[in-house]
Amino acid sequence: MLAEDRIGEECGVFGMYDLSGGDVARSIYYGLESLQHRGQESCGIAVSDTNGPKGKVISHKDMGLVNEVFTGEDIDKLVGNIGVGHVRYSTAGSSVRENAQPLVLNYVKGTLALAHNGNLTNAPELRDELAYTGAIFQTTIDSELIAYLIARQRLRTASVEDAVALAMPQIKGAYSLVIMSPRKLIGARDPHGFRPLVLGKRDNAYIFASETCALDTIDAEYIRDVEPGEIVTITSDGQILSNKTRCIPEKEHGHCIFEYIYFARPDSVLDGQSVYDARIRAGRFLYKDDPIDADIVAGVPESGNVAALGYSMESGIPYGQVFVKNSYIGRTFIKPGQKNRESSVKVKLNALNHAVNGKRVVIIDDSIVRGTTSDRIIRMLREAGAKEVHMRISSPPFLWPCYFGTDIPAREQLIAYNKSIEDIRKIIGADSLGYLKLNRLGDLVDNKMSICEGCFTGRYPEEPPVSDIRGEFEA
Amino acid sequence: MLAEDRIGEECGVFGMYDLSGGDVARSIYYGLESLQHRGQESCGIAVSDTNGPKGKVISHKDMGLVNEVFTGEDIDKLVGNIGVGHVRYSTAGSSVRENAQPLVLNYVKGTLALAHNGNLTNAPELRDELAYTGAIFQTTIDSELIAYLIARQRLRTASVEDAVALAMPQIKGAYSLVIMSPRKLIGARDPHGFRPLVLGKRDNAYIFASETCALDTIDAEYIRDVEPGEIVTITSDGQILSNKTRCIPEKEHGHCIFEYIYFARPDSVLDGQSVYDARIRAGRFLYKDDPIDADIVAGVPESGNVAALGYSMESGIPYGQVFVKNSYIGRTFIKPGQKNRESSVKVKLNALNHAVNGKRVVIIDDSIVRGTTSDRIIRMLREAGAKEVHMRISSPPFLWPCYFGTDIPAREQLIAYNKSIEDIRKIIGADSLGYLKLNRLGDLVDNKMSICEGCFTGRYPEEPPVSDIRGEFEA
Amino acid sequence: MLAEDRIGEECGVFGMYDLSGGDVARSIYYGLESLQHRGQESCGIAVSDTNGPKGKVISHKDMGLVNEVFTGEDIDKLVGNIGVGHVRYSTAGSSVRENAQPLVLNYVKGTLALAHNGNLTNAPELRDELAYTGAIFQTTIDSELIAYLIARQRLRTASVEDAVALAMPQIKGAYSLVIMSPRKLIGARDPHGFRPLVLGKRDNAYIFASETCALDTIDAEYIRDVEPGEIVTITSDGQILSNKTRCIPEKEHGHCIFEYIYFARPDSVLDGQSVYDARIRAGRFLYKDDPIDADIVAGVPESGNVAALGYSMESGIPYGQVFVKNSYIGRTFIKPGQKNRESSVKVKLNALNHAVNGKRVVIIDDSIVRGTTSDRIIRMLREAGAKEVHMRISSPPFLWPCYFGTDIPAREQLIAYNKSIEDIRKIIGADSLGYLKLNRLGDLVDNKMSICEGCFTGRYPEEPPVSDIRGEFEA
Amino acid sequence: MLAEDRIGEECGVFGMYDLSGGDVARSIYYGLESLQHRGQESCGIAVSDTNGPKGKVISHKDMGLVNEVFTGEDIDKLVGNIGVGHVRYSTAGSSVRENAQPLVLNYVKGTLALAHNGNLTNAPELRDELAYTGAIFQTTIDSELIAYLIARQRLRTASVEDAVALAMPQIKGAYSLVIMSPRKLIGARDPHGFRPLVLGKRDNAYIFASETCALDTIDAEYIRDVEPGEIVTITSDGQILSNKTRCIPEKEHGHCIFEYIYFARPDSVLDGQSVYDARIRAGRFLYKDDPIDADIVAGVPESGNVAALGYSMESGIPYGQVFVKNSYIGRTFIKPGQKNRESSVKVKLNALNHAVNGKRVVIIDDSIVRGTTSDRIIRMLREAGAKEVHMRISSPPFLWPCYFGTDIPAREQLIAYNKSIEDIRKIIGADSLGYLKLNRLGDLVDNKMSICEGCFTGRYPEEPPVSDIRGEFEA
Repeated sequence: MLAEDRIGEECGVFGMYDLSGGDVARSIYYGLESLQHRGQESCGIAVSDTNGPKGKVISHKDMGLVNEVFTGEDIDKLVGNIGVGHVRYSTAGSSVRENAQPLVLNYVKGTLALAHNGNLTNAPELRDELAYTGAIFQTTIDSELIAYLIARQRLRTASVEDAVALAMPQIKGAYSLVIMSPRKLIGARDPHGFRPLVLGKRDNAYIFASETCALDTIDAEYIRDVEPGEIVTITSDGQILSNKTRCIPEKEHGHCIFEYIYFARPDSVLDGQSVYDARIRAGRFLYKDDPIDADIVAGVPESGNVAALGYSMESGIPYGQVFVKNSYIGRTFIKPGQKNRESSVKVKLNALNHAVNGKRVVIIDDSIVRGTTSDRIIRMLREAGAKEVHMRISSPPFLWPCYFGTDIPAREQLIAYNKSIEDIRKIIGADSLGYLKLNRLGDLVDNKMSICEGCFTGRYPEEPPVSDIRGEFEA
Repeated sequence: MLAEDRIGEECGVFGMYDLSGGDVARSIYYGLESLQHRGQESCGIAVSDTNGPKGKVISHKDMGLVNEVFTGEDIDKLVGNIGVGHVRYSTAGSSVRENAQPLVLNYVKGTLALAHNGNLTNAPELRDELAYTGAIFQTTIDSELIAYLIARQRLRTASVEDAVALAMPQIKGAYSLVIMSPRKLIGARDPHGFRPLVLGKRDNAYIFASETCALDTIDAEYIRDVEPGEIVTITSDGQILSNKTRCIPEKEHGHCIFEYIYFARPDSVLDGQSVYDARIRAGRFLYKDDPIDADIVAGVPESGNVAALGYSMESGIPYGQVFVKNSYIGRTFIKPGQKNRESSVKVKLNALNHAVNGKRVVIIDDSIVRGTTSDRIIRMLREAGAKEVHMRISSPPFLWPCYFGTDIPAREQLIAYNKSIEDIRKIIGADSLGYLKLNRLGDLVDNKMSICEGCFTGRYPEEPPVSDIRGEFEA
Repeated sequence: MLAEDRIGEECGVFGMYDLSGGDVARSIYYGLESLQHRGQESCGIAVSDTNGPKGKVISHKDMGLVNEVFTGEDIDKLVGNIGVGHVRYSTAGSSVRENAQPLVLNYVKGTLALAHNGNLTNAPELRDELAYTGAIFQTTIDSELIAYLIARQRLRTASVEDAVALAMPQIKGAYSLVIMSPRKLIGARDPHGFRPLVLGKRDNAYIFASETCALDTIDAEYIRDVEPGEIVTITSDGQILSNKTRCIPEKEHGHCIFEYIYFARPDSVLDGQSVYDARIRAGRFLYKDDPIDADIVAGVPESGNVAALGYSMESGIPYGQVFVKNSYIGRTFIKPGQKNRESSVKVKLNALNHAVNGKRVVIIDDSIVRGTTSDRIIRMLREAGAKEVHMRISSPPFLWPCYFGTDIPAREQLIAYNKSIEDIRKIIGADSLGYLKLNRLGDLVDNKMSICEGCFTGRYPEEPPVSDIRGEFEA
Repeated sequence: MLAEDRIGEECGVFGMYDLSGGDVARSIYYGLESLQHRGQESCGIAVSDTNGPKGKVISHKDMGLVNEVFTGEDIDKLVGNIGVGHVRYSTAGSSVRENAQPLVLNYVKGTLALAHNGNLTNAPELRDELAYTGAIFQTTIDSELIAYLIARQRLRTASVEDAVALAMPQIKGAYSLVIMSPRKLIGARDPHGFRPLVLGKRDNAYIFASETCALDTIDAEYIRDVEPGEIVTITSDGQILSNKTRCIPEKEHGHCIFEYIYFARPDSVLDGQSVYDARIRAGRFLYKDDPIDADIVAGVPESGNVAALGYSMESGIPYGQVFVKNSYIGRTFIKPGQKNRESSVKVKLNALNHAVNGKRVVIIDDSIVRGTTSDRIIRMLREAGAKEVHMRISSPPFLWPCYFGTDIPAREQLIAYNKSIEDIRKIIGADSLGYLKLNRLGDLVDNKMSICEGCFTGRYPEEPPVSDIRGEFEA
């Protein structure tokens, strides 16, 4: 889907510990670049030298893309063999520098740096509770709450990983965490496993990352996924400690299915399931369940392409390219209210008339959120001469908000909330419109995997918060 | 092909004249963004208000991408209803701010702003000749030479377009020019038509642009191509004057065939020929002339994709996606000599193991210049489990330099210059390697079109310069 | 004294509350500019709209001078009628963005913003104590400690000013604080009154500032000084509440005498004493106690000028200017170890040969810290032809560190610690050298005023910390 | 005088040639910083390596102060042992990057770089003449005209200095030039010597600079002034060639007297005359010709200080400081039309009440241009308690424009043009007002020196241009 109508993933995390003492900032930089699709608002890296003064952390973070925030000089200054990095999703409101991660702090046992992907559903209660015992908050991010809980538990535990283990029962919701203490790197994941987190290795260095594509980028090998509820600790003598006291039965897991449909990069494998394969399957189901005769099938670039391939495989309708996407687009200067003929969609996409003209086109997108761009996409195809335009969506209709780390908007803004599919078809001007069937969701992934499909069904693996938790506190 | 081994187009040009008096900078901005693929080194916009003080020009230009060089505030300052814009190709050597275009100057009749795409083959002679009559040069770009010639002719002509007409016989080589005088916008093209230039219209505004995709972006309608040798002048009362005294027979034209194979955007139509169609044909020929049995055919993203589609159409082998490209990549901080495992290719591309594993893959690229990335691409496919990798190139081998506006390097650096195809196949590690046949070049485009295929044959539509003209003068 | 050998004041603070609802950011900006001499490392402004959503704070802070950190656009975004601002002193070590003030935070009762000038002497103990009850620290500044203490007290108090009152007994050392709560602006000062803090008024707005010169700059009228130990609260209905429970007898006050000698601007009046007058007196004493015959008396620009005037008044020796200072100097690119003839002193100062040649010169400086620039200054005067150079210092020799808000270095680095005055005279090459007599310090200011002269005598108004507190924690 | 009402010097120039091959950029940087008072709009440095490829020039220039435009990295890139630098005065209108100097160009004999201080009075005629023979202009600076003339003469001369010599008779007005050719550094000055230019030496390097203070800054020794009309050439074998064919009798010289009164730094010695001495004399004359009884005499900082010292010497009235100037002021954000109490004068200057209160004050300024700040200065003194305020101006009233390198505005804007001194006194609110007598101008400097006092008398050493030449052409 296009930026205008997109859903934002909250974050990507990356941590690395080179036990041989080599600097990790450069690899973290490339790892974050490969996770940039998970968040484009802000980013940061914090590193420490485990052989230097204890707990001295150097960090650099700011608003912007990884390649905008870091110069080569910045990277050179980040000297250290252990570090964490973070990319954050861009929303208009809370887009302030204070909220950039990793969060770096001093506490009773030295320093910590935290990078968090997810959303705590009991954040308001935690915030109140902490405030009522004298806490002060300099940001509005959940990491600050988690840090407080760890710091308080640390007073009575022998190790930082034990403090993490004691803090985890206090927090609810979705979290994949990478935590750096002076001599340890920790990866932890909520019991439902909403957000992914993988463990990798390169030579004598260990890596935690949101997706396997980040391991590939730095030529590291995939070891395994951090399990839902597990705390994995890399120690300075190279041990991999695992604490599974928070683990729950696999059938209670709630892996976000939308990671497979849209968020993750297709070359990633998350919890043993290839994202690419899931999308191919989605495309196949779309044809199987709702076959139509056409001359060409294509994706809305880039996110619809793989499902379109699956549709083509299943249907035998030739795969084609019907749009050219301009990858050089930056900010657009289209002022609201201005009588301006350049639409922001046109600036980003142009139809390939010669591929489309006279053809019956099946066009695949991953979702329709508000519906504000689908009509323009279809109109562009018709203006390019398409005889018919059939739209297929590789997910079921969004009907419910997400409280577990994505930015699906309030129900009132979801086009499918009040409209029938036929209504939507008319609004966007398609000749036909088909969504992925709800009962196909489970089949997108390995059938042993328990998924969260709350945004489609309203049934969440974990109690949703009473009130909407998103954007409440603001610095 | 990837940036490491790419060929640089010199430039993209864009001009706009709103006869109703509206500001044009914003549209020029979007036009340049859609031409950004033609040059990423520097860019600029110069505008004038035809109802304001005569020949007062406001300009802004700098090194960088369009969206880096211009802020919204910069655009707001560019008040005027006539203007020209330019994007320039990035080479390491001559990458200095002084050379950014458009060139803005005062001369005997007020102001001129020039944007130039191409390469003059008699630049050294012109420079000498002008210097020997007292000229001074503040840049090393051809536009400065052209400006001098126009300025000198203007002393004896009644109009600026007449001066352009008198200057044209003095310059040799490739040029598509957009020129702004205080009250006129002029588009001109060399007699061979090496580089494209189209004319469009939106409401009461006229546009010149390197490609039709720029017209689409701003919702303008295509009127026609500026003909090779033609000078088209838009006057303040809305006339479109055409001077064709420099036109030559169509069969002597020399449209650059590589515009169709690689440079231009596939949604553009240049001189009546769809770029998309040409690439589809290239893919078809590749199979027809050199058929092979395989499980999947894919392009090296993005430039190989359309030819791969053509190959798939002709062969029936399913089209697939075998790489994920990271579109967020900025500068890479890989230091030479540093023992670093991140290769710059890995950072940009990752193989889709699940699409490739166990498959016989046909991979299509548009060209091999030095051969420095093809081997890495093939290795990545093999590591992803490909059983066979067959490489097909949608152009014949480069054997000769280009003097007409592209940056094909000296012969010694061209891998095909000294090596047989079989040698190259071994070097890059492919199971088979096929190039487009030379005799297919003419069939890529409409058969009435005369093309320049000098880089493949050494036969140029116009005498090449005695010595290499590229990069000689440097400020 | 010159930057090479200067003593750093820690900070300047400014707060403003416009009860009529006008925006205050612009006035804070100018106020901070007038306090820039108190700190050039970083600066910041935080504002809130008392009629808007409760406790919504907008802030902007960064490394650099006020005029570098804020653009006009930044100021425009800082919409609010209550705000605090801060300038911070530049030291090499702890110069990180995280430490820029004001500190902005959420706590149990909404938001707070704090700006602090001073140094807590029990910071390590407080930090430990807070850490042991679960606090986390994101900065290394004392304001964070103060904020925690206020937040914890606030749980049991009816008002924020009561919480401040309860927090004050817990902190030791020097502090002049400006605190913004959602509807109140608070100024508070430690019981000894180490650092200055004044209250002013303009129309219906109240202002706290480190010095009266900041009031003058924005055309505000001086009301009174905040008393040592006093908490002054401006409420939304225009009351000025005063809490004096922490006040101690005047004779136990410890106003920093170096504020009058060097730190403060000469046009400021602090605790009723004109800085200008104090410096004139210092100059007079220097002549009275150590008369010498000379042709010209001059100051090391700018800080020595007023004392030189006093010396001239007392002695009748004509005042003159013997140096030209270059006020455009920025960073200097003199590399260590580089054989470079440009000394950084020469770049900043040049002797006025025509004023100096053949003359007996008395040159006045405010202090000698390490002595690294005095010798160069004297050498320049001799090269300019001075027959004699007599140096007079408008303070006694530094012998002890300062723990109360200034950056006087460790004793080992103080030239006066191990050397006799005669030794120093020889090192710097003066014909004679005179310091202000210790017994004159009290006479520089109104004789009712109790001063801190700890850096000269080692006797501090308050117990100094056991260990050196400066620069211990570092993020 | 303050920036609001100041007169702009056009430029400062600096050139350096290290015959031993050392890099010169760093020294040029410091030299330009010491000339920054002559121009704050833009600056630039161009260097070349005389042992490298012939005429390869590296340059860096931009809008801003020297310390803003150049980073250490920029300086490091400017590798070369010969170079020129320039600082340019800031006016609102023509403040565009294209006009930054040095001008760097290629011409028939390689490269040239020019830095120019002054104003050509026949620039429009030259521009026309050049344009009518086909010249194009990319800037609006006179250097471009001079470059054309040199380039054209160079066709028929054996050396670049001969070309300069032939070009000089063609240009009229004021110019002090530093020109770098591939192997020579040239300093040249117009026959009247309007603007200063000195020659210095450090080890085996030669330097041209606008003022001797630039020599002092880099520890170079003063050799002599370039004579009016002289061309001095430093050759690669260390010769100093002098061409004096354009020299005229000394009594026809026209050294700008305002250099001594205001423009130059007081530590400079220009054409053998100390600027400091001239200002002391001006102060003395002010008292001699118009004695008054007072308690204190002070200058408007900084430019009035030395004359105030002279006034004090002559009168015996004690010299004092009555204002504090804030040297940290950057841009001010006072919006026109905004009801804002912060006046920009207040932000920059504050009266020293304790020095002024109850006193009769004589305040010295160097000039009154439009009179827009004098009244505010006097009002500040009265508000500070001054009993009487007597203003003395160390120059006669401005009555005529300057065409020779300074920015004295059109007559209509000069307060003295239409008003009597008594009128002006009333407008600015002084108790008395005295200007330097016209007949004292010649006595400010050595009596052998012929000066230009055109701005006071309308009698110029050279015919002024028919029409106003300033700001006519604009890019």
